[in-house]
Amino acid sequence: MSALERNAAGRLVPTSVNGREMAPYRGLGGHRPTGRKAAPAVATCLDYPEDGDKRAPTLKEALAKVGLADGMVVSSHHHLRNGDLVANMVFDAAAELGVRDLMWFPSASFPVHSNQIRHLDSGVLHHIEGSMNGPLGDYCSQGRMRGLGVLRSHGGRWQAIQDGEVHVDVAVIAAPTADPFGNATGDRGPAACGLLGFALADSLYADRVIVVTDNLVPFPCIPWQIQGNNVDAVVPVPSIGDPAKIVSGTTVVTQSPDRRRIAELAARFCAAAGIMRPGFSFQAGAGGTTLAFTIYLRELMRSAGVTARFARGGSNTVMVDMLRAGEVEYILDGQTFDLDGVTSMASDPRHVNTSPFTSYNFHGKGNFASFVDIAVLGATEVDLGFNANVVTHSDGRLLHGIGGWQNCLAARCAMLLVPSFRDRIPVIVDEVTTLCGPGELVDVVVTERGIAVNPRRQDLLDAVSGSGLPIRPIADLKAELDRLCGVPSRPTLSDQPVAVVKWVDGTVLDTVWRV
Amino acid sequence: MSALERNAAGRLVPTSVNGREMAPYRGLGGHRPTGRKAAPAVATCLDYPEDGDKRAPTLKEALAKVGLADGMVVSSHHHLRNGDLVANMVFDAAAELGVRDLMWFPSASFPVHSNQIRHLDSGVLHHIEGSMNGPLGDYCSQGRMRGLGVLRSHGGRWQAIQDGEVHVDVAVIAAPTADPFGNATGDRGPAACGLLGFALADSLYADRVIVVTDNLVPFPCIPWQIQGNNVDAVVPVPSIGDPAKIVSGTTVVTQSPDRRRIAELAARFCAAAGIMRPGFSFQAGAGGTTLAFTIYLRELMRSAGVTARFARGGSNTVMVDMLRAGEVEYILDGQTFDLDGVTSMASDPRHVNTSPFTSYNFHGKGNFASFVDIAVLGATEVDLGFNANVVTHSDGRLLHGIGGWQNCLAARCAMLLVPSFRDRIPVIVDEVTTLCGPGELVDVVVTERGIAVNPRRQDLLDAVSGSGLPIRPIADLKAELDRLCGVPSRPTLSDQPVAVVKWVDGTVLDTVWRV
Repeated sequence: MSALERNAAGRLVPTSVNGREMAPYRGLGGHRPTGRKAAPAVATCLDYPEDGDKRAPTLKEALAKVGLADGMVVSSHHHLRNGDLVANMVFDAAAELGVRDLMWFPSASFPVHSNQIRHLDSGVLHHIEGSMNGPLGDYCSQGRMRGLGVLRSHGGRWQAIQDGEVHVDVAVIAAPTADPFGNATGDRGPAACGLLGFALADSLYADRVIVVTDNLVPFPCIPWQIQGNNVDAVVPVPSIGDPAKIVSGTTVVTQSPDRRRIAELAARFCAAAGIMRPGFSFQAGAGGTTLAFTIYLRELMRSAGVTARFARGGSNTVMVDMLRAGEVEYILDGQTFDLDGVTSMASDPRHVNTSPFTSYNFHGKGNFASFVDIAVLGATEVDLGFNANVVTHSDGRLLHGIGGWQNCLAARCAMLLVPSFRDRIPVIVDEVTTLCGPGELVDVVVTERGIAVNPRRQDLLDAVSGSGLPIRPIADLKAELDRLCGVPSRPTLSDQPVAVVKWVDGTVLDTVWRV
Repeated sequence: MSALERNAAGRLVPTSVNGREMAPYRGLGGHRPTGRKAAPAVATCLDYPEDGDKRAPTLKEALAKVGLADGMVVSSHHHLRNGDLVANMVFDAAAELGVRDLMWFPSASFPVHSNQIRHLDSGVLHHIEGSMNGPLGDYCSQGRMRGLGVLRSHGGRWQAIQDGEVHVDVAVIAAPTADPFGNATGDRGPAACGLLGFALADSLYADRVIVVTDNLVPFPCIPWQIQGNNVDAVVPVPSIGDPAKIVSGTTVVTQSPDRRRIAELAARFCAAAGIMRPGFSFQAGAGGTTLAFTIYLRELMRSAGVTARFARGGSNTVMVDMLRAGEVEYILDGQTFDLDGVTSMASDPRHVNTSPFTSYNFHGKGNFASFVDIAVLGATEVDLGFNANVVTHSDGRLLHGIGGWQNCLAARCAMLLVPSFRDRIPVIVDEVTTLCGPGELVDVVVTERGIAVNPRRQDLLDAVSGSGLPIRPIADLKAELDRLCGVPSRPTLSDQPVAVVKWVDGTVLDTVWRV
């Protein structure tokens, strides 16, 4: 058991994680990286076929060919979300090869990946570093994994690879379309998902890169979101994923009156505060509430005759419609959430695919997240200091990943859109179970019962005064919720860490304890 | 003076160049790299403005801000060709700052850059590593530069940066369009040049990157051929270049009957040899002869009902017309040579910008050059062993760069299209003045007096037998030329190296001697 230390957020965190020293969180801007980027081995064309044909007959043979061995780090990506078939193939093949103690480094995992529980149990997998949505998170929460889970944001994952904290031995990239050289794209093919940005870092820094596709085209695969010059082998398979579970055919707006009210209040806040000004920018995903937000915002933009310079996706049909109508000039997209998003990215040059490098990497020469005007996000808990949790539930169970959530907090106005309670459990609490976002960065919390503005943002408070919006101190909101629901008892958590939450700069922000 | 060693091509080369050890050429496939890629320092967003505005008022201030200092390596790029104004601004500003002994590392230099002769004379510049077309090459030939010139192919330049052989301290990128964050593109703006691929390596590996633009647009600049996340400063200037000298308004086909015959013979060879088959690929530039080749090839393709999967640019109006007509499916473009090329790249997703990484880097996991069916190239000299020269004239003067020429020799059929003599000097010689391309890779030499096929390519000889094409042994061609022109006396060159020619794998292929 590693030593624990109290970090700058007052959280007890291990100073060593899975055998690597890790700096505790030192406060915003408190950590300055030293050193140089990871340096992959120099390759040579002598080792690759002159005709560019890198096909391997099976994934198992490709893994054997690139030298998969005990203890290696194997990465995969969540572009195909809960429809992904490839990550399971990888570890099934690894099991057949008799390889053990692998570290799985997914950009995120989903319920479909609960297949890996048997590989964790059998020893093929040692542990997982990456977002664990659902069953794998629960498995980790129970302390059943041999190593610690490490939860990183999308930007933090790039940072960890780039900075050499995580060395990927073998990256396996599920590609909706690819050519035999390894050029690959996500924007077309039967399992089209839009983009492959989460795999970009792996393609650049991993020792070995395998592309798996169910839609092989002759060279050149255009666009080449992943460049074949970084790829070792290409494996054609009958299917990489279930299209119905990759993107939605249609996007559904929330029908909950409470959530619609939250969305409307948030949009009205943006207008009243003057953030929704000509040439502004916003980021909103495709969850039911944030989608409703986009629809309300669009109405207000139209009334005011305002257009946006860009919107950041997760793209969806509403955003695409705004692009086509000239209401946003560009979509800078990190992930497409429905078929209209995919089609638009494949056909409209103003719908641009991005990567965690452009959008989120904190160890770059700037990134886009800090100059987005409005970011609309969710949370499982918010506390009186505006600190927020997005990975555990109030019972302490790890059930969600961080995604781009931490990175988006850098926006000029980061807003959490949350119902005031879920299953009669208040969302506003004294102290979050797990700290994922420091309160200094959360500007506004919007509930159906009112809007709490972080007192650090006096500028926003001034801007909306007299707007008629229900602006309330967060403590008032909490008091009302506590009266309605009662204050739930805190869960009793063990003193055994099962995972850590990293901050965007690579420091350890908090610990997830065994339930 | 460094020691000289005879390399595997029998050429005497220095073993140390500008203070760095350099391996002599070891034959094709004889050099295997070890070690890891260059690793730039890890940056942090803490050092860059949160609003993404990296503008500096002048280039001089930007250079001072990034810490330009004596002895540093400063790079620039030849996208604006002989219309470039930026590289001269850089060294004029460096002179004003009182900086000395810089190494200039251009992707190529042109006559417009003879401005740098005064900076070489004054000591601001120590030496140049990069192609020197015209006056700077002549200056180097005369032994007036303090260091040795190092001539690398486009792929070799990427390789040298990537492998850490050349560490760029400050890269200055002339950008036809850019935003204040540093995203930049070449495909639009008053000085549009198409793409910025030659600057890509520098943007990834240089310590500091400055973008200079005369067309600043609000974030985001789309496309972002250069990513602002790699950029330190953005300098707006009134003009980065003279459009008339950047790309041609119109492309001119050679009117010389001899050169038209060469082009026609080459195209007929491709058809007769069966290389011009459905789905084939070719690379041809925009010189008068190669342009004529494309026109002849197009006619033959039409007659045969054959379309190409892709063409590699230098793009030009003819290639663009073929794309539009569906005669080629994709243009994979390394450099646009006329306005139609620029317009097409900016508007047609099938006209794709490439970089030396995708196309030419020999130290990648393959590159495109080796699976192009036909590459059509020029040369200043070819010898009886099919060895070729592209940088010096027969008088020994260094007047040309290598460009992508060496890299293109990897094509399945590399063809040199050369007039049999120039100014009454035969092009076919006993031994080339400077070895730039090993004869093993030159498959066919086409002159107006006949076609010489490398005896190593018995397959090609068999394929064209009975075609009626004037296939002749290269010795026969040479004998005929010698009868016509007489054998010119060899120039007397000194024993003082002034430059070296690197092979695509980073080894030293030959030496250029002071004239």
